[in-house]
Amino acid sequence: MRKKKCTVLDCRGLVIFASRHIIQVKVEPIAVKRPTILVLGAGYGGLSTVVNLQKSLGTDEAEVILVNKNDYHYESTWLHEAAAGTLSPEQVRYDISRVIKKDKVTFVKAEVRSIDVNGKTVGTTAGDFTYDYLVIALGFEGETFGIPGLDKYALSIANVNAARQIREHIEYQFATWSTEDVKADSRLTIIVGGAGFTGIEFLGELGDRIPKLCEEFDVPADKVKVLCVEAAPMVLPGFDPELVDYAVRQLKSKGIEFSIGTPVVEATPEGVKLKKGEDEFEFIEAGTVVWAAGVRGNRLIEETGIENMRARVKVDKDLRAPGYSDVFIVGDCALMINEEANRPYPPTAQIAMQQGDMCANNIIALMKQQPTSPFVPDLKGSIASLGSSDAIGVAFGKKMTGAKASFMKKMVDNRALYLIGGAPLTIKKGKFDFL
Amino acid sequence: MRKKKCTVLDCRGLVIFASRHIIQVKVEPIAVKRPTILVLGAGYGGLSTVVNLQKSLGTDEAEVILVNKNDYHYESTWLHEAAAGTLSPEQVRYDISRVIKKDKVTFVKAEVRSIDVNGKTVGTTAGDFTYDYLVIALGFEGETFGIPGLDKYALSIANVNAARQIREHIEYQFATWSTEDVKADSRLTIIVGGAGFTGIEFLGELGDRIPKLCEEFDVPADKVKVLCVEAAPMVLPGFDPELVDYAVRQLKSKGIEFSIGTPVVEATPEGVKLKKGEDEFEFIEAGTVVWAAGVRGNRLIEETGIENMRARVKVDKDLRAPGYSDVFIVGDCALMINEEANRPYPPTAQIAMQQGDMCANNIIALMKQQPTSPFVPDLKGSIASLGSSDAIGVAFGKKMTGAKASFMKKMVDNRALYLIGGAPLTIKKGKFDFL
Repeated sequence: MRKKKCTVLDCRGLVIFASRHIIQVKVEPIAVKRPTILVLGAGYGGLSTVVNLQKSLGTDEAEVILVNKNDYHYESTWLHEAAAGTLSPEQVRYDISRVIKKDKVTFVKAEVRSIDVNGKTVGTTAGDFTYDYLVIALGFEGETFGIPGLDKYALSIANVNAARQIREHIEYQFATWSTEDVKADSRLTIIVGGAGFTGIEFLGELGDRIPKLCEEFDVPADKVKVLCVEAAPMVLPGFDPELVDYAVRQLKSKGIEFSIGTPVVEATPEGVKLKKGEDEFEFIEAGTVVWAAGVRGNRLIEETGIENMRARVKVDKDLRAPGYSDVFIVGDCALMINEEANRPYPPTAQIAMQQGDMCANNIIALMKQQPTSPFVPDLKGSIASLGSSDAIGVAFGKKMTGAKASFMKKMVDNRALYLIGGAPLTIKKGKFDFL
Repeated sequence: MRKKKCTVLDCRGLVIFASRHIIQVKVEPIAVKRPTILVLGAGYGGLSTVVNLQKSLGTDEAEVILVNKNDYHYESTWLHEAAAGTLSPEQVRYDISRVIKKDKVTFVKAEVRSIDVNGKTVGTTAGDFTYDYLVIALGFEGETFGIPGLDKYALSIANVNAARQIREHIEYQFATWSTEDVKADSRLTIIVGGAGFTGIEFLGELGDRIPKLCEEFDVPADKVKVLCVEAAPMVLPGFDPELVDYAVRQLKSKGIEFSIGTPVVEATPEGVKLKKGEDEFEFIEAGTVVWAAGVRGNRLIEETGIENMRARVKVDKDLRAPGYSDVFIVGDCALMINEEANRPYPPTAQIAMQQGDMCANNIIALMKQQPTSPFVPDLKGSIASLGSSDAIGVAFGKKMTGAKASFMKKMVDNRALYLIGGAPLTIKKGKFDFL
């Protein structure tokens, strides 16, 4: 009855009916064993793998399971902004449910506890999972190189929670200084350990943030000290020296001090001890110590038995773990050598996302008994921000500084959002403050 | 020449000319000794005194000097909001320069160090000042009744700096909990000592704020505990029992717990020890302890030799300190007995502002060798807020609760701004969120 009515009255009615009809007569396929693809981690690498899998796979071709500690993804390359307090933590993350298709991917909010690559089982706080293909995309952890006290007394820009804690810690120090009768000026000293990418970007944000903190908490600007300490004899290794000079000059103009070639040998509740010479040490009191000097892969890697260096695995060209044809590793836990430069590619979001893309392709190839493809990074450049309106870097083969570089940096950030979440997410969480 | 031109061309010209003429021919008065009126403190009492003096006095009649620790006035009755984080500290204060007339009042940013009422000298961090009339309006300090540990381990809603520290302290506890592997849930426990006016208003704000903090820092709401502990057997002494019941019910509905008739006997870095019975004690672990259970006058009063009780002086009817004809005391350092109720008037902003008004009148009367007038409080009621949209109280003789009382409370807050700073300040800093 209804069918007739619809066809007569409205051509759109037919479509509605047709779709209903399909659902009604749909014959369930004979249950065949679909392969289970288990993806651990929803960072750049893991989420990129899942998004590319769901693009290419039909609903019934595989069981894709994504396991992540939080129900959100965060932009780990933006965490220094949340840590400095220049960007809200909310702006740094988005719900995983926004980017996965529920009919193709099952999301499990759980923490991974163990990975058994021989028994093909992953233990999590939500139970054990078996797999046909495993993608390990568990990201980085901070590396303190065994320096005593750092684990306990230094903060690290490791995730959203940690970044928030740094912001709150600094604000609390400023607030407390203002209430003290006898003022401990060292509360207002912030030591940043490391003059690499993260350290420099964090210093850039602090340069923007400190004047605002001084105003908010009635702290005279000359009481605040921000000091970057670095063991290596240089700032931003790998960057063009001209760009490095620019960066250091700009940061110094914002009052940031540098102590280069001076390793931290100990951290205490009061500050850090620096090695200034052969037998020469200096203790610097500081209310806040942020350690941004090293990263390593996830510790669970070390328990798998797969050969690794600081929990990073030198993966095969197709991104598989050597000796395990069903285990892929992408992102910061994967180590690949840049043969031109004869050193590892840095653990960047750019490479992690490209790896996710290739990892998805290679899993699908294996499912179809086709050969896998080698992963070749497509390096588009690297830009380090120096606060909200300044940056340095190389993009499309060109060196750039200042407002132009800052604009490019924001475009790079927006691109990461776009690649995983498309336009709506980019508009919601992207950076458009250059307008 | 010019005079003629003006009178012919334009009648307004005459006025301009006349005014110029007056300035030109003005004869400087023979230098007579103008009395110095020294006002200590720019709280409700002090600022109200100064504003009323500058209204009534001509530029040459007196030298009015206002000494205050900060170059801003803050609404001490709003501090619980800044402490809970529901109102920005900026919204709670305004620059003193906005309300004083520079040709009539000299503002000195300095901390008062000593008051010598016999030698008529006040020592400050900006030097010594002598006076003909002194107005002591130094406000309240927290009173910890000698309970061990409270001075050191409890926070107090004493001023803008302290309120900011409480907000930051709570946020830092939440941020730290989120980063911890082994979570110390007691970090999320907030103990509020005191179920009087300030304690209850602060709890009301916490009731609004906690759900937002939970969301911001990814803390499950059921992990948070807010407990009000009170030594006395009742909540909000002096308030109508029906209103008190309403307040407690509303706060409990927001998850706030009460432990009444249980004095705090000790505070430690881990929490507080409560006396639950004759020989029965309970230790409650808490990351945050806010002491809101008692106020006293400023400690400097105790060094003046003027008779006092907890640094509050039972002033004469005209607000002068007994035995000192040139010393006025207004605000929280002044003690006046409400003879009807046979107990002291509470230290409120309402009374402090009325006292400032009368104090200015009486100083002017003394300058003119006229008799002073007695101060009689004009009690318009009392409203305690329970968060941003709820309150209880009595105004114009009527009991009220809920949205209506909350609206009245905001009007009371705006009125304090209006009385001291007029309409522009009220518009800039007032509370209009009921719209």
